[in-house]
Amino acid sequence: MEPVSNLHGTDSKLVKQEEQRQDLGFGTKLNDTYSRLINKDGSFNINRVNEPLRDRINLYNRLITMDWVHFLSWILLFYLAENVVFACIYLLAGAENLKGADDRIFHGSFWKAFFFSAQTLTTVGYGHIAPNSFLTSAIAAFESMLGLLAFALSTGLLYGRFSRPVAHIRFSKHAVFAPYLDVNGWMFRIINARSNQLIDVQVEVSMSRLETKPDGTVHRKYYGLKLERSKVSFFPTNWTVVHPITDDSPLHGCTPDNLAESDAEFLILLRAMDDTFAQVVHSRYSYRYDEVLWGQKFRSMTDGNQAGMATVDLNKLDITDPAPLN
Amino acid sequence: MEPVSNLHGTDSKLVKQEEQRQDLGFGTKLNDTYSRLINKDGSFNINRVNEPLRDRINLYNRLITMDWVHFLSWILLFYLAENVVFACIYLLAGAENLKGADDRIFHGSFWKAFFFSAQTLTTVGYGHIAPNSFLTSAIAAFESMLGLLAFALSTGLLYGRFSRPVAHIRFSKHAVFAPYLDVNGWMFRIINARSNQLIDVQVEVSMSRLETKPDGTVHRKYYGLKLERSKVSFFPTNWTVVHPITDDSPLHGCTPDNLAESDAEFLILLRAMDDTFAQVVHSRYSYRYDEVLWGQKFRSMTDGNQAGMATVDLNKLDITDPAPLN
Amino acid sequence: MEPVSNLHGTDSKLVKQEEQRQDLGFGTKLNDTYSRLINKDGSFNINRVNEPLRDRINLYNRLITMDWVHFLSWILLFYLAENVVFACIYLLAGAENLKGADDRIFHGSFWKAFFFSAQTLTTVGYGHIAPNSFLTSAIAAFESMLGLLAFALSTGLLYGRFSRPVAHIRFSKHAVFAPYLDVNGWMFRIINARSNQLIDVQVEVSMSRLETKPDGTVHRKYYGLKLERSKVSFFPTNWTVVHPITDDSPLHGCTPDNLAESDAEFLILLRAMDDTFAQVVHSRYSYRYDEVLWGQKFRSMTDGNQAGMATVDLNKLDITDPAPLN
Amino acid sequence: MEPVSNLHGTDSKLVKQEEQRQDLGFGTKLNDTYSRLINKDGSFNINRVNEPLRDRINLYNRLITMDWVHFLSWILLFYLAENVVFACIYLLAGAENLKGADDRIFHGSFWKAFFFSAQTLTTVGYGHIAPNSFLTSAIAAFESMLGLLAFALSTGLLYGRFSRPVAHIRFSKHAVFAPYLDVNGWMFRIINARSNQLIDVQVEVSMSRLETKPDGTVHRKYYGLKLERSKVSFFPTNWTVVHPITDDSPLHGCTPDNLAESDAEFLILLRAMDDTFAQVVHSRYSYRYDEVLWGQKFRSMTDGNQAGMATVDLNKLDITDPAPLN
Repeated sequence: MEPVSNLHGTDSKLVKQEEQRQDLGFGTKLNDTYSRLINKDGSFNINRVNEPLRDRINLYNRLITMDWVHFLSWILLFYLAENVVFACIYLLAGAENLKGADDRIFHGSFWKAFFFSAQTLTTVGYGHIAPNSFLTSAIAAFESMLGLLAFALSTGLLYGRFSRPVAHIRFSKHAVFAPYLDVNGWMFRIINARSNQLIDVQVEVSMSRLETKPDGTVHRKYYGLKLERSKVSFFPTNWTVVHPITDDSPLHGCTPDNLAESDAEFLILLRAMDDTFAQVVHSRYSYRYDEVLWGQKFRSMTDGNQAGMATVDLNKLDITDPAPLN
Repeated sequence: MEPVSNLHGTDSKLVKQEEQRQDLGFGTKLNDTYSRLINKDGSFNINRVNEPLRDRINLYNRLITMDWVHFLSWILLFYLAENVVFACIYLLAGAENLKGADDRIFHGSFWKAFFFSAQTLTTVGYGHIAPNSFLTSAIAAFESMLGLLAFALSTGLLYGRFSRPVAHIRFSKHAVFAPYLDVNGWMFRIINARSNQLIDVQVEVSMSRLETKPDGTVHRKYYGLKLERSKVSFFPTNWTVVHPITDDSPLHGCTPDNLAESDAEFLILLRAMDDTFAQVVHSRYSYRYDEVLWGQKFRSMTDGNQAGMATVDLNKLDITDPAPLN
Repeated sequence: MEPVSNLHGTDSKLVKQEEQRQDLGFGTKLNDTYSRLINKDGSFNINRVNEPLRDRINLYNRLITMDWVHFLSWILLFYLAENVVFACIYLLAGAENLKGADDRIFHGSFWKAFFFSAQTLTTVGYGHIAPNSFLTSAIAAFESMLGLLAFALSTGLLYGRFSRPVAHIRFSKHAVFAPYLDVNGWMFRIINARSNQLIDVQVEVSMSRLETKPDGTVHRKYYGLKLERSKVSFFPTNWTVVHPITDDSPLHGCTPDNLAESDAEFLILLRAMDDTFAQVVHSRYSYRYDEVLWGQKFRSMTDGNQAGMATVDLNKLDITDPAPLN
Repeated sequence: MEPVSNLHGTDSKLVKQEEQRQDLGFGTKLNDTYSRLINKDGSFNINRVNEPLRDRINLYNRLITMDWVHFLSWILLFYLAENVVFACIYLLAGAENLKGADDRIFHGSFWKAFFFSAQTLTTVGYGHIAPNSFLTSAIAAFESMLGLLAFALSTGLLYGRFSRPVAHIRFSKHAVFAPYLDVNGWMFRIINARSNQLIDVQVEVSMSRLETKPDGTVHRKYYGLKLERSKVSFFPTNWTVVHPITDDSPLHGCTPDNLAESDAEFLILLRAMDDTFAQVVHSRYSYRYDEVLWGQKFRSMTDGNQAGMATVDLNKLDITDPAPLN
């Protein structure tokens, strides 16, 4: 290693500029106009190659996050497969060593071994079929231990699935440009889809768009959008999140064509505290330029009070009415 | 989409005003005077319609938060129902295929099938009744797996119920207007009802009241109330939370009639850290104008030290004594 | 409710003073000199009376925090009691309805019923004793369900006990007044007693002492002590926490007699993040005036590096050497 | 205790200097040049002596953090050992009291007792071997309870292992000195090895090096390195963490020889929020002077978009290209 005499620092303006640039973690090189950054389900539109198999499968995570139909199918499949494997092992060890009930009533010795395996794995152990040799006893002792562990695992998985903190936030189908006080605003609307309470709900909105540098290269820039209100303590009704388009807004003077040309995408990160489990929950969402309506405002979701209670109608989340922009 | 040439931003005063307005997340449209915002149990007084069935039921949440009597009744009911269903299935598959003990001693074949089902579901499997055909064996194999999963679920539910972070904060029945130093203060008193320790206890108090705009429309406004002390590190005794009514307080110059007319409600959000499980716990509470006493102060809950220990008497939480206001 | 015309706010100096006063949550009325505020095990020296039985027992908390010998004894006792109760029920339902093995080999029908109960509760169900009537079958079906729930509960309790976040911080037996740079400092020393890592360790130190007001009444005051360093990112070795006694320290000019007369107590609250489980852990401790040494400094716990590794000797935690104060 | 009249505070400059000094928690005495502070696996290179046995073993922690092969081996070993112990106990209580199947088919009474123990411990309880005396029944009742507890423990351990929050961050093999804008920068690169999302990723970098005081003594000093960007909201692709070497950087004017002489080590602490479980995860890493390349920059890991998706190639994490320093 030769000494690097020219390694020097300067009070660089470029460094200071760079420090002020916002980056959400996507980098500046995602400058393709044909894809979005965040998908509608909150996942990122990034393809990872050469990821090790184990990390790609990420078994526990998948079992926790897959839907219930798939999950229960996997459990059932695994149970059947385990019993088939052990049935074969018992047959190899000699079906005659499973004493008790007659083979014929189970449609042959394979099924007898299969049911014996099931009775061992679940530790139900009726005993009308029982291991009658050293070898089958040893296999059964091992299988019942395995059954306990599998059961322990299922317990953990079921608890993990249920107790996992998830925010069921519904976002309005479109964001809108609507009049806001004496200016205009970019807005979207959210509501808690579940009846459990969320508190300390915080929203961060960024806009990503392609910009052309003086030298003609295209790169992606990110802007944080200042919100009328970025946090509410309680969230029992709907919340219309508003970015007022004042002079210092990056959306100032923007037109629908601008948005489309620059492949604009509005990225939303929501954090809240689930009141039931005191867990932090997150939700991601994004609106692309073609999911933003111009000159529309949201219709109120709150009805007049009925029976001494304010009423919120969840079906009205997406309804907008025309409203001329200021 | 036509270009919106008139979309412009201005350095709007209204926007800045709006940014300073406080909103707890209820919005300004809840201007009915006949209902409160937060109920005494901490839930919100909001009616949600058109909520999807699944979200309204919110099964796991309910099973976690319902009281123990209901919870155990559901468990028992589910156990009975499951056994009745499987008893019927075994009868359809042929009761004669459950070999072993005589039907008559169980009062008929239904109950024999019922008890066999119970023995299978719980995996106790005595074996004096045992499946004696392919079909009943297969059903039993499935049922015992189901039993394991149900058990796994119960384990998760029980653990979830016990480990759920809940703050058992008792709030004084009334809030009071009492003299405070050389001014007056709005006060309420809290104590930890449980013997486990809470640390870093934080309290936020807001007042909501109806106000009439110059144009005669009534809308709901929210004010954060500044507290003498909004956080304590330890919470071993009681804590009287005080909002001093200084010149800048929204309660300055307020009378009982004012409060009643404006449908005033004091909203309290408490956050703390449970010392045993290091979990964040929350508590919500509210005092309406008719739950506030004027010219009363709280009597000390701390007795003289007995046996070298300070003594706090929980029964004194609600006791107040008359105290002329400054 | 008559209007309170004299309810007015003023720009009160007293209110501002009060806002700056520190209170850890003990209040000012604990002015007995014979007791400490925080016990050596971190609990508070407060006696609570009229606490409802359920809150005082706080069953789950106790089962989680009691030591292992007690916990396992309770489990065993509960298991025995449950079996005795069910044995009696089976006897009432008729011991002759438990078919199978001869009573005499179990030393009578009570023990036969007892063992049958144990085999049912644990779902082991050998079947050499089996319920042979409707009534005993029903009781057994109920008992095995109960067994599953008890098991589910034990699983939760065991997991709760193990996964509970606890900081095993050892505090030096004495705090010391020692020379520190060109002044003196009040110091104590801590080390992580466990081999798992703690990160982001934060320490808060307060002093509580009795002070006499001009009118002669004695009240307890609290002072936050400013630390040389109140947070470290890593905590692999020992940490000597230092409060430098500069001019603005409440300990400035203080003598051992002062400390004793004012019943001084140093209260410590430690927060850290357990690296293994990413849980926040807390530790409380206190030094009373008679646990503080004057003119002693801590001897280094770090040995010269051995085998390429720095060495920390946990046995040296409490060792101090005389050091003349500045 | 004599009064210490010379205990006085002064407005000490030394105290203020000390307050500004950074210390990560290692102290200044680790001045050996032959070892690193943080090992490549994130553990600390500190040897602890006289740690109590229980704290050193830290059983639960070990069972949670050991790899799966070891964990399952321990489970199996424990299961075998428990059965051997109980088999011996049953033999002592008289093998003839285990009624049922003939000894000879199990290769002698030890194995019969062993398999009976296994069937009891797992609560499978076929019943073809059954306790036939008071003593063996009592032992079996105890063993089956023990089995349930062991199972409960395994459930907890398995859940604890799976749900433990771990960040699988891959750090580039080398850090580099590379040109950065119009100056140079010290950089390393990280990527999330798993497919689950991390959000709010924060990085702290410190440099530790030996410095010689005017009096010739060598001590270790720590410097926080200011980063171009210390936090990103999302982390779907790679992140090159950059410390720009401006005038105020402690690396300003530094040469490879300097770094080596002063035993420089770069310490990295990463905090993030796991999106699936909403848990905080940590990762520690360190680069020593000989793991830093001079005049190399990282090659982009992002490929041109394929099929409408940006592509990140994890295999390129460590690849650097020569780049002359500014």
